Amino acid sequence: MAQTTPNHTQTVSGWAAHDPSGKITPYTFKRRENGINDVTIKILYCGICHTDIHHVKNDWGITMYPVVPGHEITGLITKVGGNVTNFKVGDRVGVGCLAATCLECEFCKESQENYCDQVQFTYNGIFWDGSITYGGYSKMLVADHRYVVHIPENLPMDAAAPLLCAGITVYCPLKDNNLLDLPGKRIGVIGLGGLGHVAVKFGKAFGHHVTVISTSPSKEKEARDRLGADDFIVSTDAAQMKAGKRSLDFILDTVSAYHSLGPYLELLKVNGTLAIVGAPDKPMDLPSFPLIFGKRAVKGSMTGNMKETQEMMDMCGKYNIMCDIETVMPEEINEALDRLAKNDVKYRFVIDIANQKPSSL
Amino acid sequence: MAQTTPNHTQTVSGWAAHDPSGKITPYTFKRRENGINDVTIKILYCGICHTDIHHVKNDWGITMYPVVPGHEITGLITKVGGNVTNFKVGDRVGVGCLAATCLECEFCKESQENYCDQVQFTYNGIFWDGSITYGGYSKMLVADHRYVVHIPENLPMDAAAPLLCAGITVYCPLKDNNLLDLPGKRIGVIGLGGLGHVAVKFGKAFGHHVTVISTSPSKEKEARDRLGADDFIVSTDAAQMKAGKRSLDFILDTVSAYHSLGPYLELLKVNGTLAIVGAPDKPMDLPSFPLIFGKRAVKGSMTGNMKETQEMMDMCGKYNIMCDIETVMPEEINEALDRLAKNDVKYRFVIDIANQKPSSL
Repeated sequence: MAQTTPNHTQTVSGWAAHDPSGKITPYTFKRRENGINDVTIKILYCGICHTDIHHVKNDWGITMYPVVPGHEITGLITKVGGNVTNFKVGDRVGVGCLAATCLECEFCKESQENYCDQVQFTYNGIFWDGSITYGGYSKMLVADHRYVVHIPENLPMDAAAPLLCAGITVYCPLKDNNLLDLPGKRIGVIGLGGLGHVAVKFGKAFGHHVTVISTSPSKEKEARDRLGADDFIVSTDAAQMKAGKRSLDFILDTVSAYHSLGPYLELLKVNGTLAIVGAPDKPMDLPSFPLIFGKRAVKGSMTGNMKETQEMMDMCGKYNIMCDIETVMPEEINEALDRLAKNDVKYRFVIDIANQKPSSL
Repeated sequence: MAQTTPNHTQTVSGWAAHDPSGKITPYTFKRRENGINDVTIKILYCGICHTDIHHVKNDWGITMYPVVPGHEITGLITKVGGNVTNFKVGDRVGVGCLAATCLECEFCKESQENYCDQVQFTYNGIFWDGSITYGGYSKMLVADHRYVVHIPENLPMDAAAPLLCAGITVYCPLKDNNLLDLPGKRIGVIGLGGLGHVAVKFGKAFGHHVTVISTSPSKEKEARDRLGADDFIVSTDAAQMKAGKRSLDFILDTVSAYHSLGPYLELLKVNGTLAIVGAPDKPMDLPSFPLIFGKRAVKGSMTGNMKETQEMMDMCGKYNIMCDIETVMPEEINEALDRLAKNDVKYRFVIDIANQKPSSL
């Protein structure tokens, strides 16, 4: 595996969890030489995604320890392979969830490589050479250029980092449901965390009436004043939920904790769609009545393909959309993970890998 | 309520359940005079739908006893109101689930009245005059002509009856997912009962490759030989389910018992849709991973509107599609309900209300 792959000769400093305690400690490992299709990236920032918690604690039973998490990576190109024409040394770039796909199936050929059934992720995946992939909680990354995007000049590298996962994850269902080009819809966003707060920004940028749906009444002021939400529904308030029945065209459900979909489905108009992007550990409850009586749909969506990721980044550049972040130093990762597990962050932790504080463009 | 509504002057013999034991006994009640928008129908046949079981036993907590079930009704027009121009005495007609809608909302105005939020059903509903509706387990029905369809001459009245609910319920999701006009798709049908067997017939008539997915290996021969299914997957056979992964464009889930959707979602290709038309009492399990990783959708669908119901009937006439039925006499209803609860019927019970046995066109 990783440590014995012959061309893995570059020593890298990073941070890894070594067992299901999930505790992150400094970890030195090897990365491959920069191949002809690769770029080498000096990592500046890496966002902390909720998925990282699931992986370090082996919640899904798929973790290969030691695991170096991180798939919201921004940095600078330091080396390019001979086949790489779209990046040059010094370019500001980002890497998200994807590390490798088969390149040959219908999905890879149609730029939908995120749905390739051989997809391998930026960490805890198996790369083409058989090595385990290590993510962005590290100082340097070697990535195939096909899974790298440019970061627009006007976006700060720290606040752009979470766009590589949180951003693209909420962008794609909006795109797939025709919400980029048809303004004036009434959309709901369940959960005001790392994904939800970006979804609100996209929703407003694309001209929609945005309702935040949350268990926390305390988030209303901020949702409206800071993020620009038009409306707010406290999901535990039966009267508010009843008043909101059949009011929304589309709901984006960003909650990664277990929940029943029934009450939220009732908020949708007939023919409305609820898109799921969170990944609760255990199955959600799906009552049939609100689905059937409203001819409603529940759809899944997993991040986005690379073409969409670049498109999303460019859109963020155009609308000046970035994440609201709290920057932490590498030695604060454990504390950040603990706080994230309690949703105690507005709205995304980003690790200042290269000690750039404060962020420079 | 019903018994005290002034113009309810017509005495009708029927069969009703009087308490949650669900036992059906003869019951004499009143129906309204034939109004200017009404037609009076001599009922010939009435199908026994799984929904009838839920209602007679008050499984959903909404039953108003005594309940006269039945919403798969065929019969002959015996009287027409002054405003009725599309039906005449002697016409062969059918009545399904709908008894009344508001006529004024966007859904009613756009011929989607089955999604009107004031919709009232053929039994256990509240009609415009405040009376409780009584269904087709009875000798005569007065129905507003807007909720009545013509039965094509070539369809026998007994085997056509279940089309009014089972037929339209599976027809609409096929239509909504573009499966009427685009042949050659690979579709799955979960459950080979009253709904499922009609779905297989529609699927084949519309030119698709149809896979039946069932817990019962014993149904394979019949599914293939009698109904024309192309393939059969035993859902409890892990190897068969694994072999079927990512193989289907569309699945129609007709099962009304509790089940997890996860294993079935895995059978869908990326972007595939599973449409739910059964109504399990308790919420189904919806794991997020197969939904997210396959960008799949779960959609609901509730019967159809009247325009679609006539269209479906005409399509059945064209393709000579009817239900496979077992005819029972009114005194055998309790036994039929018991057998239906055990799925012991191929594939739909139809009550010979007018004692026509054997069926005449």
